[in-house]
Amino acid sequence: MTPAQDNSRCVSICQLFFDYSTPKILVIRSKKVGAINRITQALVIAYIIGYVCVWEKGYQDTDSILSSVTTKVKGIAVTNTFDLGLRIWDVADYIIPPQEESSFFVLTNLIVTQNQTQKHCAEIPSVASICSSDKNCKAGFRGPRSKGVRTGRCVNFNHTVKTCEVLAWCPLERDDEPPNPPMLADAENFTVLVKNNIRFPKFNFKKRNILPQINSSYLKHCVFNRSTDPECPIFRLKDMVEEAEEDFQTMAVHGGVMEVQIRWDCDLDMPGSWCVPRYNFRRLDNKDPTNTVSPGYNFRFAKYYKEGDNEETRTLIKGYGIRFDIMVFGQAGKFYIVSTLLNIGAGLALLGLVTVVCDLIVLTFMTKRNHYREQKYSYVDDCFDSGRINRPP
Amino acid sequence: MTPAQDNSRCVSICQLFFDYSTPKILVIRSKKVGAINRITQALVIAYIIGYVCVWEKGYQDTDSILSSVTTKVKGIAVTNTFDLGLRIWDVADYIIPPQEESSFFVLTNLIVTQNQTQKHCAEIPSVASICSSDKNCKAGFRGPRSKGVRTGRCVNFNHTVKTCEVLAWCPLERDDEPPNPPMLADAENFTVLVKNNIRFPKFNFKKRNILPQINSSYLKHCVFNRSTDPECPIFRLKDMVEEAEEDFQTMAVHGGVMEVQIRWDCDLDMPGSWCVPRYNFRRLDNKDPTNTVSPGYNFRFAKYYKEGDNEETRTLIKGYGIRFDIMVFGQAGKFYIVSTLLNIGAGLALLGLVTVVCDLIVLTFMTKRNHYREQKYSYVDDCFDSGRINRPP
Amino acid sequence: MTPAQDNSRCVSICQLFFDYSTPKILVIRSKKVGAINRITQALVIAYIIGYVCVWEKGYQDTDSILSSVTTKVKGIAVTNTFDLGLRIWDVADYIIPPQEESSFFVLTNLIVTQNQTQKHCAEIPSVASICSSDKNCKAGFRGPRSKGVRTGRCVNFNHTVKTCEVLAWCPLERDDEPPNPPMLADAENFTVLVKNNIRFPKFNFKKRNILPQINSSYLKHCVFNRSTDPECPIFRLKDMVEEAEEDFQTMAVHGGVMEVQIRWDCDLDMPGSWCVPRYNFRRLDNKDPTNTVSPGYNFRFAKYYKEGDNEETRTLIKGYGIRFDIMVFGQAGKFYIVSTLLNIGAGLALLGLVTVVCDLIVLTFMTKRNHYREQKYSYVDDCFDSGRINRPP
Repeated sequence: MTPAQDNSRCVSICQLFFDYSTPKILVIRSKKVGAINRITQALVIAYIIGYVCVWEKGYQDTDSILSSVTTKVKGIAVTNTFDLGLRIWDVADYIIPPQEESSFFVLTNLIVTQNQTQKHCAEIPSVASICSSDKNCKAGFRGPRSKGVRTGRCVNFNHTVKTCEVLAWCPLERDDEPPNPPMLADAENFTVLVKNNIRFPKFNFKKRNILPQINSSYLKHCVFNRSTDPECPIFRLKDMVEEAEEDFQTMAVHGGVMEVQIRWDCDLDMPGSWCVPRYNFRRLDNKDPTNTVSPGYNFRFAKYYKEGDNEETRTLIKGYGIRFDIMVFGQAGKFYIVSTLLNIGAGLALLGLVTVVCDLIVLTFMTKRNHYREQKYSYVDDCFDSGRINRPP
Repeated sequence: MTPAQDNSRCVSICQLFFDYSTPKILVIRSKKVGAINRITQALVIAYIIGYVCVWEKGYQDTDSILSSVTTKVKGIAVTNTFDLGLRIWDVADYIIPPQEESSFFVLTNLIVTQNQTQKHCAEIPSVASICSSDKNCKAGFRGPRSKGVRTGRCVNFNHTVKTCEVLAWCPLERDDEPPNPPMLADAENFTVLVKNNIRFPKFNFKKRNILPQINSSYLKHCVFNRSTDPECPIFRLKDMVEEAEEDFQTMAVHGGVMEVQIRWDCDLDMPGSWCVPRYNFRRLDNKDPTNTVSPGYNFRFAKYYKEGDNEETRTLIKGYGIRFDIMVFGQAGKFYIVSTLLNIGAGLALLGLVTVVCDLIVLTFMTKRNHYREQKYSYVDDCFDSGRINRPP
Repeated sequence: MTPAQDNSRCVSICQLFFDYSTPKILVIRSKKVGAINRITQALVIAYIIGYVCVWEKGYQDTDSILSSVTTKVKGIAVTNTFDLGLRIWDVADYIIPPQEESSFFVLTNLIVTQNQTQKHCAEIPSVASICSSDKNCKAGFRGPRSKGVRTGRCVNFNHTVKTCEVLAWCPLERDDEPPNPPMLADAENFTVLVKNNIRFPKFNFKKRNILPQINSSYLKHCVFNRSTDPECPIFRLKDMVEEAEEDFQTMAVHGGVMEVQIRWDCDLDMPGSWCVPRYNFRRLDNKDPTNTVSPGYNFRFAKYYKEGDNEETRTLIKGYGIRFDIMVFGQAGKFYIVSTLLNIGAGLALLGLVTVVCDLIVLTFMTKRNHYREQKYSYVDDCFDSGRINRPP
């Protein structure tokens, strides 16, 4: 009786449900083949364990960070200039705006134009503004760089030169190079306390960058130093800039943008106290020498006053300074069974590929390849009889 | 002798270590089956190469962008109103606050209330505030929309109407519709220079949106234009708003929020110069006509003055304007051997599924299915003899 | 004739292209084995359907959120202090800076130092500042906590005590504890309207947190309440703080940072109206009792005035308050054929692993294991004859 008949009968007896199909395996017992096989397997397993499990921590579930940052700058600067005289600058003077979210700006250099009022005055001499008669000055015209609207008259800027008259905040700001050395050179000694609270919601883990072991007395005097005080959350501006391999005084002249990077990479399978922030500092705006188009960082702002006669005057300040953007990165990992299984599964699947590789080698390059082929493959052709070849008689 | 005995002996001889097990394969030689098989394989391979490798760039390692943005607005506006007179507005006047991180606000319209001082005055007439006697005005009461605290007295607002008296910054702001056309209509010609420095840390790749080929002289006069100047980082406010298919003057009346999107999608296997920013503009706050609840964007701020008699006065400004949020997106990819292998592996695994599909077809729909089944499957039952069927006698 | 010869000939006839190789399968018909097999399969399938498809929504393509936030605070506070007298505080007074991106600060408590001018005065007595003679006061010295630069003279602070003289903004700020109860205790009744517009670009889906069914009249009076008004986008500050399980008045004294979380989790296979924001509130800065180093949140800012004699004076304000950071999270999912196929594929691959597990059980623990092994495995040894063992004679 043929197996076919066997089948039909058997199916009717024990229901298909209990069929368990497993592939038929040919076991080749050869030192060469075996060795190749085991080595490839070893490699794959090594990869899985080494890379996936240990390096990538594949057995962990990960969570990304939630963080809040507040900053507090301390320090005093003294300036002594002709138009301002001897002057003290404190936090309220040089932090603009007084509070920001995870970012703060420190004024390091400035061009001040005092007692501006809205009236008519002669433009600063330039190719565009110098005129000989009113005809040169188109009324209502405003150039891209001009600070006011032309009245159409050509007036004396001084005894020698005539320029177009404008309606503007007069006297006009002299938009020349900022003072060098910078006016608030003292800013390099300012310190900033960065308070950073983080949370990994998935693991309900909270921490702050003021670590438990830090006590108040230490915080009162400490200053961050990578080697001596790596945990102190108070930073000297100069140190931060120098960590980014920049010179503070140079940077202070035209200003710039600094990144304060706080990195929390926490393995929560380890004690929580091992989860500490790492600080890095980098200059964000590149001071590309070939392209000197408006280098550094500056902006204009004004303080508004009213004279007795109710006329509004203002002090215009072109402020150069360093903006510190505080960026908090981080990830936490904790053992999680699902992730573990997923990675093991993927690993086993990868192991399956080993057979493919080995077969290739065994059946193509080995001397006994034909012998192995015979064993591995059986053939069935459309021509029925030849299909029977390796079925039992 | 039975294979079982063979095993036991052989195991003892050549150790299990060198066993290499490979599945036994039945090769069916039939045009139909073969065709089906190859076609499915072709499809899968096409998918892997086409989608994974080419489209998704599966052979690349990717890195996300780090970026810093600074902005600088230029331009002058002229207003001529009854209470302010002819007035010039420059950057220091219309950018509030003077500096922000990756965002800037341009004042386009305003309601000014000058010379406010802390004293008593009559509320603006409204259903809630009109009164006939003190009884109508509860002392200490403050409504959700009222601008001060009631003193409990009912006073003349003018000859005809009496309203409750409040302690507040008087005169009270008349909270009516903003001027239309907007006061700073000139704002449409303001230009903003956006400086964006990006970094792909993993590949240590830095770039800025002021591309190397842009020289200072070009930057001095250029204005972004999608067709003529797509690389100029200076944008005219009106252009940005129109790119978002909005009308500037309409938007300027009530204000709004615009998104300036800078997208860096860089294939670092290509020359770095191919990695350029793409700019897009979109309105973020939807001006939904059905819901006119406080449309647009506005906020109140004040300038504080002191009169000679040391009394504090302020000018209250309800400022309407457009806030531009600059959002930098981007990703970089570079060839990475691990990613490549991973994708190839996944592909091969997918190829394995082909067999599943083909078997289904071959063993269910083909005419010769029974014949093939016989070849593919051999059966072993719990009843021992029938278990022997296709073992050699 | 040997199969080997068969091969060679057949290859020459029907070309390799049409070879279809499928593994030879051994079907074991045994209740035990079958049951084990089916159960494991059931588990895997359950996992795929349950976890991947239903829970993780594996059949969906996901997109992350783009969002813009604007806020508007309303409310009035009254203070009555010795140096300020009876005073009204409105939005322009207590929101600093007047506008921020997705964040706002509400002043709740303050220490005011009025009429500061740049001149010389005696330091506030402290261990560091008290002196007996000029020798104790090094000229030009500025301590980390000192508010000015020492002139080198030792002067009377009052009749009893002498302190070093400093050049600073005088009178100096008395940096003592903030008032308790907080000055702007009324702030608890301030309300804030949060306008949040979101977009899922991939699905071109837009929505705002002012839901369509909310009409203007409702918005005028409603206040968010988790149970009664869960859709009202107007929040009472006190409610927000209490949702975070904090006491407003306590928090207001030293200030703090609050997170306003808006979560949009949208299944876009469902009607869009089901996609609604969920609000959560949490305190971000931890008020950790063990570490009282500069708790809460405060900063200094100043209002600048000019007296008639053109001398600049300022009012220094140390402002304590609550900063509300609005964070918008969210994800949208929509059916996507590619994702679906990918997950099914992965599922099938996983099913493959079932065989591995079952084989393990069947061939190691079952009583009939040897019998099954004989069927599953055939062996070929390097010694040819023994290689022939289970080939037909």
